[in-house]
Amino acid sequence: MDIFDRIEANRGPLGSHSHYAEGYFMFPKLEGEIGPHMGFRGRKMLNWSLNNYLGLANHPEVRKVDAEAAAEFGMAMPMGARMMSGNSANHERLERELSEFVQKPATYLLNFGYQGVVSIIDSMVGRHDVIVYDAESHACIIDGVRLHAGKRFVYRHNDMASLEKQLTAAKRITDETGGGIFVITEGVFGMSGNQGDLRGVIKLKEKFSFRLFVDDAHGFGTMGPTGAGTGEAQGVQDGIDLYFSTFAKSMASIGAFVSGPQSVIEYLRYNMRSQVFAKSLPMPLVVGAIKRLELLRTKPELRENLWTIVHAIQNGLREKGFNIGTTTSPVTPVLLEGEIPDATQVTLDLRENHGIFCSIVVYPVVPKGVIMLRIIPTAVHTLEDVQETIAAFEVVADKLKNGLYSRTTAVPQAV
Amino acid sequence: MDIFDRIEANRGPLGSHSHYAEGYFMFPKLEGEIGPHMGFRGRKMLNWSLNNYLGLANHPEVRKVDAEAAAEFGMAMPMGARMMSGNSANHERLERELSEFVQKPATYLLNFGYQGVVSIIDSMVGRHDVIVYDAESHACIIDGVRLHAGKRFVYRHNDMASLEKQLTAAKRITDETGGGIFVITEGVFGMSGNQGDLRGVIKLKEKFSFRLFVDDAHGFGTMGPTGAGTGEAQGVQDGIDLYFSTFAKSMASIGAFVSGPQSVIEYLRYNMRSQVFAKSLPMPLVVGAIKRLELLRTKPELRENLWTIVHAIQNGLREKGFNIGTTTSPVTPVLLEGEIPDATQVTLDLRENHGIFCSIVVYPVVPKGVIMLRIIPTAVHTLEDVQETIAAFEVVADKLKNGLYSRTTAVPQAV
Repeated sequence: MDIFDRIEANRGPLGSHSHYAEGYFMFPKLEGEIGPHMGFRGRKMLNWSLNNYLGLANHPEVRKVDAEAAAEFGMAMPMGARMMSGNSANHERLERELSEFVQKPATYLLNFGYQGVVSIIDSMVGRHDVIVYDAESHACIIDGVRLHAGKRFVYRHNDMASLEKQLTAAKRITDETGGGIFVITEGVFGMSGNQGDLRGVIKLKEKFSFRLFVDDAHGFGTMGPTGAGTGEAQGVQDGIDLYFSTFAKSMASIGAFVSGPQSVIEYLRYNMRSQVFAKSLPMPLVVGAIKRLELLRTKPELRENLWTIVHAIQNGLREKGFNIGTTTSPVTPVLLEGEIPDATQVTLDLRENHGIFCSIVVYPVVPKGVIMLRIIPTAVHTLEDVQETIAAFEVVADKLKNGLYSRTTAVPQAV
Repeated sequence: MDIFDRIEANRGPLGSHSHYAEGYFMFPKLEGEIGPHMGFRGRKMLNWSLNNYLGLANHPEVRKVDAEAAAEFGMAMPMGARMMSGNSANHERLERELSEFVQKPATYLLNFGYQGVVSIIDSMVGRHDVIVYDAESHACIIDGVRLHAGKRFVYRHNDMASLEKQLTAAKRITDETGGGIFVITEGVFGMSGNQGDLRGVIKLKEKFSFRLFVDDAHGFGTMGPTGAGTGEAQGVQDGIDLYFSTFAKSMASIGAFVSGPQSVIEYLRYNMRSQVFAKSLPMPLVVGAIKRLELLRTKPELRENLWTIVHAIQNGLREKGFNIGTTTSPVTPVLLEGEIPDATQVTLDLRENHGIFCSIVVYPVVPKGVIMLRIIPTAVHTLEDVQETIAAFEVVADKLKNGLYSRTTAVPQAV
């Protein structure tokens, strides 16, 4: 069958919703400066949908440096892959500062987080090695695992008995092949807000020989006494062999980094395909990241504000009887019962009648019958924002429970 | 074996050269504004190593817009994946303008070219489909093909008899599976400078049913009467089913796009994993790309200047007896005979004694015994630059031929 004909007939799990979702539930256009109050279709919204944890996106010092760096360097510099012609003293400076911040000997910048993770995994393992990874790992981890030519075992999310079982199976393989075991999990899981049980995983090093790679996209800058991430929060930073974070969350930018022992980082610099064969991180993003990291280090009040809001909204929701799952991080899922049509009605009601904008997550990301409203608190939200949101959630949850929403998918009017 | 121990023992094909190459042959730091004259270790160099084909990196109008857009939006905006919260009117405007420029119905922006290509391939094919691809395809294409769960066949670089043979084999499979055939090649191959034989590939559509995906990273903006790329240059733009280019070459930025029929682009928007699950292209890069595209459209003199330099250096080198392979694009490889130690001596001599900086490519990218100096002409080079370079190449080629270089890998003194 012609590939294009098949695509016309089957638009994929998300694409099948596009006829009503486009521009409203999917591909919405938020307007104005990034922060808790943004526009959507011309209306002001109280916004909980962005991973701007520390409020750095629109911090005056960040905005100043972003503007100055773009004026000084333009967006083109440096050109070419880091290895060929795209290296700079600023790239190396940021790497040194990140190493110090996450308490690792060495760091390499990545031009983008997603392909960075894929290539880290791809270059760390060969066909004789075995990957063991958490079942709820992010898409970029899954794509990296998919490139692996050897065996891979998945363990039930955060389940240490399951991990032990898979490690036992993995060891049986590597005993034969002579390869090693590469365990992959996340610091904070972006959907549930669960912390990866890093302490539990690292405890298993007493029984098994493996190397641990942690994607701490949501933990970097938000978790731990200094913001060094989930390993620091759990007191096991040293047990993480390779530490990764993107700049796309608390750092409010793009780009990413990986930290670990000098020799391994050196190896990665010379072997990650998406880095050797693609352009270096642009200079204004590097200089901007140096400033953002400085604020992470020197302004603990940003992290304190974040956690004030996190505690207020999570405790407030729990007190009102909401199911917010098992989160132990700023990520705050609100789990309601309902089908996709209900989800669209709830979202429409929140946006149109309560002026509250948050992301909505439905099957297949959550089980059928579950609607997840995903709230991302930030350092620049206020306690009034929290109260307003909880009150609105009470109203819509009540309507949902009492069957007061129409059972058809909402089709928002064009504006 | 422990994975880290193995890595310490085997640093990979490029990493094994790091003890002398680091900071000089690999990971060099170019200094100053991007252009034909840049600094390297404090010395002024005539620089031929950057894919700044049209000279846009440092074009005053580009620099102005880059600075203004960063001042207006900051580097953080928009946050989140395009589908969730990272859409904007500017993203959609750039897509419309790109569609018009490359003469395709629809376009989708990609947050980075490498992972964009990987995910295009990944989402276009299922296990019943067969991929047929050119043997010299870029790493990002190879990684996309590696994700494919079905059959794949590789054809000899630009060899239409080989492609026909592989299509015959592919058809035998898809006749059984009911899948389709996805052919992948490039517009311009970045190492040899060869154009992909798009006309030849598309002619085979008369005998076989397949869809053609072309990565035109080096052709976009440089090839064809309007700069619309290699398909336009060969008069077969309509035969390209999916057209891709990065912004990392003639556009002097990062980000990328894919163009094709409306329904297929819609499908890709909702299904490419690296786009659905990773951050949108930052606004200053989008606004900067709109300006760059405007210059591509309205300043044909940039492309004319480029080709003046291309013809001057390629004809000049040929006249002096240099082997520049089979290039039919601006990419200009200069092929010399020698081993890796010779390559380091030639490069060192060119940089230290002639002030000429170009990239050097050795085994395994080119066969053993071949040294490739890769020259990238740009619109902002001059005919004097060309003359100076050819003269220097004559001197070093003569020394190389007469065995006047030391046979050790050069280890440049630190500065």
